[in-house]
Amino acid sequence: MRAVSIETGVSKHAEGSCLIRIGDTQVLCTASLEERVPPFLKGAGQGWVTAEYGMLPRSTSSRMRREAQAGKQGGRTIEIQRLIGRSLRAGVDRQALGERQITVDCDVIQADGGTRCAAITGGWVALRMAVNRLMKAGDIKMDPLVSPVAAVSCGIYAGQPLLDLDYAEDSEAGVDGNFILRGDGQIIEVQMSAEGATFSRAQMGTLMDLAEKGVGELVAAQQAALA
Amino acid sequence: MRAVSIETGVSKHAEGSCLIRIGDTQVLCTASLEERVPPFLKGAGQGWVTAEYGMLPRSTSSRMRREAQAGKQGGRTIEIQRLIGRSLRAGVDRQALGERQITVDCDVIQADGGTRCAAITGGWVALRMAVNRLMKAGDIKMDPLVSPVAAVSCGIYAGQPLLDLDYAEDSEAGVDGNFILRGDGQIIEVQMSAEGATFSRAQMGTLMDLAEKGVGELVAAQQAALA
Amino acid sequence: MRAVSIETGVSKHAEGSCLIRIGDTQVLCTASLEERVPPFLKGAGQGWVTAEYGMLPRSTSSRMRREAQAGKQGGRTIEIQRLIGRSLRAGVDRQALGERQITVDCDVIQADGGTRCAAITGGWVALRMAVNRLMKAGDIKMDPLVSPVAAVSCGIYAGQPLLDLDYAEDSEAGVDGNFILRGDGQIIEVQMSAEGATFSRAQMGTLMDLAEKGVGELVAAQQAALA
Amino acid sequence: MRAVSIETGVSKHAEGSCLIRIGDTQVLCTASLEERVPPFLKGAGQGWVTAEYGMLPRSTSSRMRREAQAGKQGGRTIEIQRLIGRSLRAGVDRQALGERQITVDCDVIQADGGTRCAAITGGWVALRMAVNRLMKAGDIKMDPLVSPVAAVSCGIYAGQPLLDLDYAEDSEAGVDGNFILRGDGQIIEVQMSAEGATFSRAQMGTLMDLAEKGVGELVAAQQAALA
Amino acid sequence: MRAVSIETGVSKHAEGSCLIRIGDTQVLCTASLEERVPPFLKGAGQGWVTAEYGMLPRSTSSRMRREAQAGKQGGRTIEIQRLIGRSLRAGVDRQALGERQITVDCDVIQADGGTRCAAITGGWVALRMAVNRLMKAGDIKMDPLVSPVAAVSCGIYAGQPLLDLDYAEDSEAGVDGNFILRGDGQIIEVQMSAEGATFSRAQMGTLMDLAEKGVGELVAAQQAALA
Amino acid sequence: MRAVSIETGVSKHAEGSCLIRIGDTQVLCTASLEERVPPFLKGAGQGWVTAEYGMLPRSTSSRMRREAQAGKQGGRTIEIQRLIGRSLRAGVDRQALGERQITVDCDVIQADGGTRCAAITGGWVALRMAVNRLMKAGDIKMDPLVSPVAAVSCGIYAGQPLLDLDYAEDSEAGVDGNFILRGDGQIIEVQMSAEGATFSRAQMGTLMDLAEKGVGELVAAQQAALA
Repeated sequence: MRAVSIETGVSKHAEGSCLIRIGDTQVLCTASLEERVPPFLKGAGQGWVTAEYGMLPRSTSSRMRREAQAGKQGGRTIEIQRLIGRSLRAGVDRQALGERQITVDCDVIQADGGTRCAAITGGWVALRMAVNRLMKAGDIKMDPLVSPVAAVSCGIYAGQPLLDLDYAEDSEAGVDGNFILRGDGQIIEVQMSAEGATFSRAQMGTLMDLAEKGVGELVAAQQAALA
Repeated sequence: MRAVSIETGVSKHAEGSCLIRIGDTQVLCTASLEERVPPFLKGAGQGWVTAEYGMLPRSTSSRMRREAQAGKQGGRTIEIQRLIGRSLRAGVDRQALGERQITVDCDVIQADGGTRCAAITGGWVALRMAVNRLMKAGDIKMDPLVSPVAAVSCGIYAGQPLLDLDYAEDSEAGVDGNFILRGDGQIIEVQMSAEGATFSRAQMGTLMDLAEKGVGELVAAQQAALA
Repeated sequence: MRAVSIETGVSKHAEGSCLIRIGDTQVLCTASLEERVPPFLKGAGQGWVTAEYGMLPRSTSSRMRREAQAGKQGGRTIEIQRLIGRSLRAGVDRQALGERQITVDCDVIQADGGTRCAAITGGWVALRMAVNRLMKAGDIKMDPLVSPVAAVSCGIYAGQPLLDLDYAEDSEAGVDGNFILRGDGQIIEVQMSAEGATFSRAQMGTLMDLAEKGVGELVAAQQAALA
Repeated sequence: MRAVSIETGVSKHAEGSCLIRIGDTQVLCTASLEERVPPFLKGAGQGWVTAEYGMLPRSTSSRMRREAQAGKQGGRTIEIQRLIGRSLRAGVDRQALGERQITVDCDVIQADGGTRCAAITGGWVALRMAVNRLMKAGDIKMDPLVSPVAAVSCGIYAGQPLLDLDYAEDSEAGVDGNFILRGDGQIIEVQMSAEGATFSRAQMGTLMDLAEKGVGELVAAQQAALA
Repeated sequence: MRAVSIETGVSKHAEGSCLIRIGDTQVLCTASLEERVPPFLKGAGQGWVTAEYGMLPRSTSSRMRREAQAGKQGGRTIEIQRLIGRSLRAGVDRQALGERQITVDCDVIQADGGTRCAAITGGWVALRMAVNRLMKAGDIKMDPLVSPVAAVSCGIYAGQPLLDLDYAEDSEAGVDGNFILRGDGQIIEVQMSAEGATFSRAQMGTLMDLAEKGVGELVAAQQAALA
Repeated sequence: MRAVSIETGVSKHAEGSCLIRIGDTQVLCTASLEERVPPFLKGAGQGWVTAEYGMLPRSTSSRMRREAQAGKQGGRTIEIQRLIGRSLRAGVDRQALGERQITVDCDVIQADGGTRCAAITGGWVALRMAVNRLMKAGDIKMDPLVSPVAAVSCGIYAGQPLLDLDYAEDSEAGVDGNFILRGDGQIIEVQMSAEGATFSRAQMGTLMDLAEKGVGELVAAQQAALA
C-alpha cells in the first residue's frame, strides 16, 4: 500500500472537504449540501447522496481534452461517478438523513492509478464532515452514516497479486479489481475484470484478502484525519 | 434459470445474428464485420471487437425516451456496452483475428431483467457466426475465439440467493451481481453491488456457485443453437 | 406488390403492437398510451398522436452509425417520423380521442426499401389496437379512428412505373413517390420527387393509380391481421 | 399570386445573390462557390449543389428562438433545406458543373407564408448568377443549368383552391401543397398534405393547374431579374 | 468615419427595427417585446434588455459555417452578444421599464469590419422604437432610456490611430479597441487589445479622443433616423 | 492588494505549473507542451500559445453545475479563456517559439474574486517554466518570452477606486475593470465595464494608475517564485 494522507478542511466554501493523496494520486473531494432532493424523491422523507468525478486536463502524464469542451462526459467518467455515488449511498441511512441532498465532487488534481478508489475513500471523509456539521447544528438527530466506506484496487501483475496499483502497474495488470467495503467488513461492491488474462476463483479469494487488509488501513487513515 | 432460446440467422444483412430469449427478455444481436480497425490499432496486426447496446423505447413496461432524441446515450447504456465489448474481447485472440473489426450490436426488443447478460450470451453467438464465415472463406487460419463467453445475473432477494433474476426480482433484490465466464470456467468479469443490503464473503461464494451453474446451461444453449 | 404479413401482439408491454413484413423489410410498431397531452394541447379537450422512427444499426446492408451515439437524429429520420405522425393523425378524430397521447414507435428491424410506408401501415395497426383497448375499457365512447391509414411507395424505374419498390429498385428509380391514403380512398399525403429524372402530369396519374391499388391490398392485410 | 420582386446583386461577397419578395415574404439568397466537393464525390468528376435555410428570430410575428442557441436545427428547417437542395439539383447537369460545390443559403428576413417556395425560386437566381460567373471566366464550357427551377404553394382554404398562400391562409388551409417545377413544365417535386381535411384526385388536379400557372409567372420574374 | 445610414421600420413584425449601414457593413436590428422577465427577475419589479447576435453564412468574404448547424454559437458570437446586451442595459433604467423584456437581435447581413459596434448603435435605435411604442400606448410613464448608446471601433494601424476600421484595416491593426459611450459622454465600456503590438497610456488617450468624436456623429445619425 | 503567493512545480506531469493564491482565490495553472501546432499554423514556422479555464464545481460559495455535464462551456468561461490566451500570446515571440504549442490550463480551486487575473498571472509563470525547460534542453535558442505578463482587476465601489477586488467588492462594484500589462509597462488589454454606474475619463485614469501599481507587485511575485 502506498503512503496515504488525508488533509481535511481544504475548501473555504464546501460543507465538507479533503485532499486525499495515495502515492502520487491526489483527489480533491468536496461535499455540498442542499436542502432539496431530486424530483424522484420529493416528499418521500428520504435524502440523497450523489457524486461527480472529473480529471483536470493535465492531471495525467499527457494532457487530456477537457470534457467541458468535448461537450460531454466520457464513458469512463460516467461509470466512475455512478460507482462513487452508489458506494457512498451504501453507507448511508437515507431516512435518517432527511429530505436533503449531499453532492460529493471528486476532482483528480494528479493521477497515478487508483483515482476512483481514492475518490470514494476521500469522498466519504468529505461526506462525514458535512454530516457532522448537520448534526452539530441539530438538523439531524440520528447519525445517518452507518459505517465508513473505503475502496482499494487490487490486481494480478506478472502473475503476482498486488494491492493498490499505481498507473504503471495498472496498465500492465492482467486482472484488475476494485473493492469497496464498509468499515465493519461488509462488502458494498466488487468489480473484477480480466484485462488480457482471465482469473480463477482461487485468485478472486487472494485479491479479496488483500483488499480487506488495504481497506482496514484506509479506514484507519480516515478516522485519523477526522479526529 | 428461465427458459432460454437462441434463434440464429435472423438478419439478412449481418455477418452473424441471433435473437436470444431468456424468459420474456428478447435481445437481437448482430455482428458486423469491417476490414479496418480503429485508429489506435492501425498497423498493429491485431483486430478489435466492440459492442453497442440499445433498448427500443417500448421494450420496457412504460415507454422510455429514445436516446437518439435525448441527444446522448445514458450512463447505464454506456456502462453496459463497455461491459459487453470488454467481455467478448476476453474470449478473443486478437492477433489471430487479424486487422479487422467486428461490431456486435445488442438491441433489446423486450426487457424483463438480465438484458446485459442476454446481450453478452447472444452477442457471442453472433460473433461466433461472423468468425465462422471468415474461416470458411479462408480469411483467417487459426480460430481467434478461444472459448465461449456467457453471462448470468445472480442476486439475493429476501435473503435467498437467486439465479437469473427477472425484472420484478431484480428491482427488489438487495444484492445484484453479473457474472461473465468463459466456457472453460475461467472468470472474465464479476460485478457485485449492494442495492440496499451489503453482503459477506460467504454470500459471494454462494452466488458464484449459482453463476457457474447458470453459465454452464447457457454455453450448452449456445452450442445447440450453432450446431 | 411484395408479400405482406402483419403479426399483432408481439410486445408484452405495449398497448398495441405489430411486426409488419413487406418483402424483406421488417418494422416493429408499438403504440404507447399516456394519460397526458403535450403542453400546447393542455386543457384543449383533444388528444394527440405522434410517432418516432429509428433503424437498428445493422438493419441495412452495411452497418449505419447508431443515432444515439451520433448525438442526434439525422435529417432523414426526422423527416420520416414527422410524416408518420402527420399521416396517422389524418385518420384520427382528436376530439373523440380525449386528452391523452398515443406515441407510435416504428423501429426498422430489417430494411429492404419502403420502410416509411411499412411504418405507417403497421403503425396504424398498433394504433388501432391501443384504441380498441381504450374502447373496451370504456374510456372512450366514440371511435376516434375515422378510417384506416396505409401507405405505399411507387416509382419510375427504367421508364416503367413500379409499385412497392425494394431497395435495389428504389436506389435506381428516376422518380420516387410515397402515397398515404385512407381506406375510404381519400388522400392524406402525396410526395413525388425527381431523383435523376423529372416527370410529367401523365406519369403522376399512372403512379397514383398504382398507389390506390397497393393501398387497397394493404388495408385488406390490416383488417385481416386485426380480425 | 402576390406581387413578386427579385433584386439581384445584393451581396458584396457572394458569387450570386438576390433578395426575393413575394408579398410580405422576403428571403435573402446567396450562392457560394467552392472549388471542392463533399467527400462522397471526390474524384467522381461531378459537382454538387446544396442548400441551407434559416429564419431570422424576428422574421415571424412573434419571436422564435435562434436555432444556433437551441443547439440544433429544428425538424422543419432540416426538411426545408433538404427540399431546396434536392429541387435545385434537379435543374443541374452535375457532370457539366465539374468538381466544384455551390452552396445556396436562403435566409428568411421576413416571413408571411411560402418561404420555402420563395427560397427555391430566389435560390435558383443566385445559382444562375454564380454559374454565369463561372462561364464568363471560362471555367465551365457547357451550361450546367438545364432549365429554371421555381416553386409555388397552393392549398384548399374554406373549400376553395388558392394559389400562393400567405401566412393567414396557410394556417387555416385544410390542404397544403408545394409544387416545384422546371421552366419546361417538367415536375421536380410535389408535396401535398392533408391538414385537417383530406383530398381527392380531382382536387389534386385543380391545385396542379394553379401551380403550373404560378410557376410560369415566377419563371418570367426570374428571367426579368437576370436580364 | 465611413458613411452611416440608419433605415428604421424595416420589419413588419418587430416592435422596433432598423437596418444600419456603416460603409459596407450592414446589420439588421430588431427589438422584440415580451410581457415577461427571465426567472431571476420574477417579481423584482424590474425589466430586462438582452441581445443576440448572428452572422449570415455569406455575410463574410468567404462562407462561414452556419452556427445552427455547428450545434452551438462560437466563442466570438457569445462574447459579442454579451457585450451588446450589457451596453444597451447601461442606458436603461430597468425600474422604469417595468416587468417586461426586450430582446434586441442583431443579424449581420454584410460584414466589412465593426459589426459589433454597428449592432450596438443600431440596436439602440430598435430599442428606442420599441420603448416609444410602449410609451405611446401608456404602458410606461417615465422614459426608461436615460441616454442614447452608441459604439465605435478605433485602432492603431501602421503606427497611425484610426477611427472606424473596415475589415482590411482591422485585420492588420496592431491595436484594436471598441468604445461604447452614452450620448452624455459617460463611458459604458472600453475594450482595448493588443493584436501584435502592445500600447501605451498616451495611445489609449488618442484612441479615446477619436472614439468620442465618432460616437458624437453616430448619436447624431441615431437622432436623425428616429426623427 | 491582497496577499499573493505563487507555489511552483505543483504538478508531477506538466512541463510547467504553479498554484497561485491571491487572498482566498486559488488557481492551479499548468503548461502542457506539444510538438505540433493547430492546423491553421501548419508549416508557418511559428508556435502557438492557448489557454483553457475552468472552475471546480464547489470553488464557489454555492455549488455550480459542472460544465462537462451541462454539455458545453458557458459564455463567461469562453470569454475568460480567450482573454487568457490572447494576453499570454502578447508576451510571446511566436517565431522564436518555433512550431510547437503550449496549452495553459487554469483551473480555479477556490474562488474569491479576480480569478481571471490570477489565471493570467499564474499562467505566465507556468508558461515561463515550460519555456525554460525547452531552452535548457536546447530546443529553443532565443527566449520567446519578451516580457512577463500579469493582470489585476480594479473597480469603483461606493465611489471609491479599489485595487484587486474580492468577490464581495466585485459584486457590488459599479465599475469593474481588468488590466493586463507587461512587465515593461506596455498595455496588453484593458477592459472596463459599467455595472450599474457609468464612468468618466478621469476615473479611467485613476484605475489605470492603480493597475500599474498592482501589476508591478505581481511581476515581482512572479520573479520571486521563479527564482
